[in-house]
Amino acid sequence: MLRPREAVRTLPSYHPPLGGRDGLRLDFNENTVGCSSRVLERLRRLGAEDFARYPEREPVEAAVAEMLGVDPTELLLTNGVDEAIHLLCQTYLEADDEAVIVVPTYSMYRIYMMAAGAKVISVPKGKNFEFPTDDLYKAITARTRLIAIANPNNPTGTVAPEQDLVRIARSAPGVAVLVDEAYFEFYGQSVMVVRDELPNLFVARTFSKAYGLAGLRMGLLVGDAEQMRAVRRVSSPYNVNAAALACLPEALNDQPYIQQYVSEVRESRARLERALEAAGIQFWPSQANFVLARVGAASAFVEHMRRRRILVRDRSGDPGCEGCVRITLGPREHTDRLLTALHETLEEAGLGQGVSRQ
Amino acid sequence: MLRPREAVRTLPSYHPPLGGRDGLRLDFNENTVGCSSRVLERLRRLGAEDFARYPEREPVEAAVAEMLGVDPTELLLTNGVDEAIHLLCQTYLEADDEAVIVVPTYSMYRIYMMAAGAKVISVPKGKNFEFPTDDLYKAITARTRLIAIANPNNPTGTVAPEQDLVRIARSAPGVAVLVDEAYFEFYGQSVMVVRDELPNLFVARTFSKAYGLAGLRMGLLVGDAEQMRAVRRVSSPYNVNAAALACLPEALNDQPYIQQYVSEVRESRARLERALEAAGIQFWPSQANFVLARVGAASAFVEHMRRRRILVRDRSGDPGCEGCVRITLGPREHTDRLLTALHETLEEAGLGQGVSRQ
Repeated sequence: MLRPREAVRTLPSYHPPLGGRDGLRLDFNENTVGCSSRVLERLRRLGAEDFARYPEREPVEAAVAEMLGVDPTELLLTNGVDEAIHLLCQTYLEADDEAVIVVPTYSMYRIYMMAAGAKVISVPKGKNFEFPTDDLYKAITARTRLIAIANPNNPTGTVAPEQDLVRIARSAPGVAVLVDEAYFEFYGQSVMVVRDELPNLFVARTFSKAYGLAGLRMGLLVGDAEQMRAVRRVSSPYNVNAAALACLPEALNDQPYIQQYVSEVRESRARLERALEAAGIQFWPSQANFVLARVGAASAFVEHMRRRRILVRDRSGDPGCEGCVRITLGPREHTDRLLTALHETLEEAGLGQGVSRQ
Repeated sequence: MLRPREAVRTLPSYHPPLGGRDGLRLDFNENTVGCSSRVLERLRRLGAEDFARYPEREPVEAAVAEMLGVDPTELLLTNGVDEAIHLLCQTYLEADDEAVIVVPTYSMYRIYMMAAGAKVISVPKGKNFEFPTDDLYKAITARTRLIAIANPNNPTGTVAPEQDLVRIARSAPGVAVLVDEAYFEFYGQSVMVVRDELPNLFVARTFSKAYGLAGLRMGLLVGDAEQMRAVRRVSSPYNVNAAALACLPEALNDQPYIQQYVSEVRESRARLERALEAAGIQFWPSQANFVLARVGAASAFVEHMRRRRILVRDRSGDPGCEGCVRITLGPREHTDRLLTALHETLEEAGLGQGVSRQ
C-alpha cells in the first residue's frame, strides 16, 4: 500500500475561493483594472513559434536584474512567489528543522514549510498587528533554518520596521530570512537596499499585484549569489512560461503606468479608511492595496457585498482576525462602487454609524 | 553562515543549451511547426482581465479529465511535466529512501529525486536500449519508494512492454511508479487504460511536444484519487498560468491537427531511419518524435549541422550513448532540409556511406 510521506499526509490543503468570481474583484488583491497596454501589445505579438519553444529564462533574467540593480547571479525568476517560497523551503529545510512565521500571514509559507518536514513556529503579531520583533527573536533557536516575513503583510497591510528586519537577519546569519515584498509597490520601501551586507537575506517580488499579471505567474527571488546557486539547482530550467517572460521587460519598463495605478490605489485606500473610521469600524492602517476591517459578522458582510456584486474576502478564520474582512482597492471608480455597496451593506446589516462618501 | 541542505549542495545543475537557437530547431523534441490555429485564436482573444486574475485550475481540470476519461479527483494540471516529477518526489521521498530510474533517461528525474534527499539507483538499459525488466526488479528493495520511467524513453526513443510496466507496478504496491508519457502521441500506447487496477501507478503527459506548447508550460499527472489528494496538497493552487489554461481545451479538442502532425512526424521518422541505415549509421528504432543515432564524433557532427542551420542535440554524455546525437523530427519540409544537411555533413566529415534522400 502506497503511503505519502508523513509530512504530506498531515498537510493542510489551501483552497482559495476562486470559483464563480462574478462582480468587482476586491477579494484577491489583484490589480482591478489590468496590466499596462504595452504588456498587452507585447502579448498580442506572440506567435506559434514563441509558444512552441521551451522558454528561455536567462536573457530576461539578465534584463530584469539590470533594472533592479542586482547581478543576474543574484536573481531567479519564479512561477509566482509561491514557487520562490517552495524553492527556499526545499533548499534550507530538513525534516525536524524549525521555520518561523509571524501570524496572521500568507498561507503558503506554512504549507511549504510543513511539506519540507519542518516544524512551523508561529509568532503572533501584537494586539494591533504590530510586528513582534522581541517575540520573533525569542522564537529563534539552534534548529531555526528559515524565517518568512511578508512586508507589507497580508492580510493585515501592516509593515515591519526595516531596522528590525535587518537586525533579525544580522543576528541569525545561519538562518535564511525571506522578506516577501509582494505589495512593495504600494509601500515604496524595500530591504533590497540593505541586502548586500546580509548574505542570508532573500527578497521576493511579484507581478501578480500592482502589475496586473496574476494570471501569467511571475515572481522573482533575489539573494546572495552563492545561495542562489543552490536555490537555482532545485528549480526546473523551464519554470516560467514564455508569455510571462516576453511581457516582463515591458511591464517593468512602463513605470508611469505602475506609478499612476499605485497613486490611485493609495487615494482609494485613504478614502476607504476615512469611510471605515466614520462608520466606527475598526481597521488597521495599510501600506498595501487592501485594508483589513473588523466588520463583525464577516461571512454575512461578504454575502451582503456579493449581492451588490462586490467581492471581498472573509479573513475571520486567520489568527487575531475574528470578524475581519479584507477589501482590495482599485482606482477611483471602483472605490465609488465599493463605498456605495459598503454604505448599503452597513445600513442593511445595522452596522456602524453609516459610511460617509467623501 | 547559511548552508543549503546537504542534498541540495551536492545536486547537479541542469543547463539545457537553450541559448542562441538560430536555425531549424531539431534539438529539443518540440513541435517544429507550432500549435493548432484554434489554440492561437484562443490566445489572441485573451485580454487584460484574463491576465489580471489568478488562474482558476479546477474548471479546466474537470474538462480535461472528462476528455481523458478519468475523474477530476484523479488529475492534476502541472507547470510542465517537471512540476509533476517534483511533486511526486516531494510526496513520496524521504531522506535516505531509494528511487529508481532506467538510464539513459530524462535528466530531471535524478535531480528532483536527489533534491528530496533520496538515493538514486540507476538501472542501465540493455546493449540496444532494451527495457531492463529483470534488472529493474532486482533493484527494488524495501527502501524503494519511487520508480520513474519515460515511455517512450528520451533520448533513446525506445519503449517498455506494457505488461512489464504493469507487472512492476503490481509487484511493488508500496512504490509509486511514474510512467512519463511525454511522447505518447507519437507512440499511441498508454498505461492509462490499466491504471484502474494499480493505485500506485501515475501517468504524466505534456503539451510541450506534439501539441506545440512548450512555451506555455502545461503538463498533467493522473493517479489514484486518494494519492492525488496528497500530491495536490504540495502544489500551489496557482501552479499553471491562465494562458495555458485557456488554450488547453482548444488544444485537446483539435485532435485532427494532432493526428495530422503525428502522421507527418512518423513518416519523417521512417525517412530518417532509412537514410541512417543507408549511411551505415547505427540508430535505435524510435516510437517518439526523435531518433538517437551514433554518428561518432557527436560534437563535430552537431557543429557541422549547425553551420547548415539545423540544430540537433549532442547526447554523447548520456550513459550508453557514446558518439550519439538526438535528432527531432517535424513534417516533410523540415525533413527535406534535415536530410540535405545530414548528407552534406556526412560527406564533409567523411562519415557513413552517403545518405539516400528517399
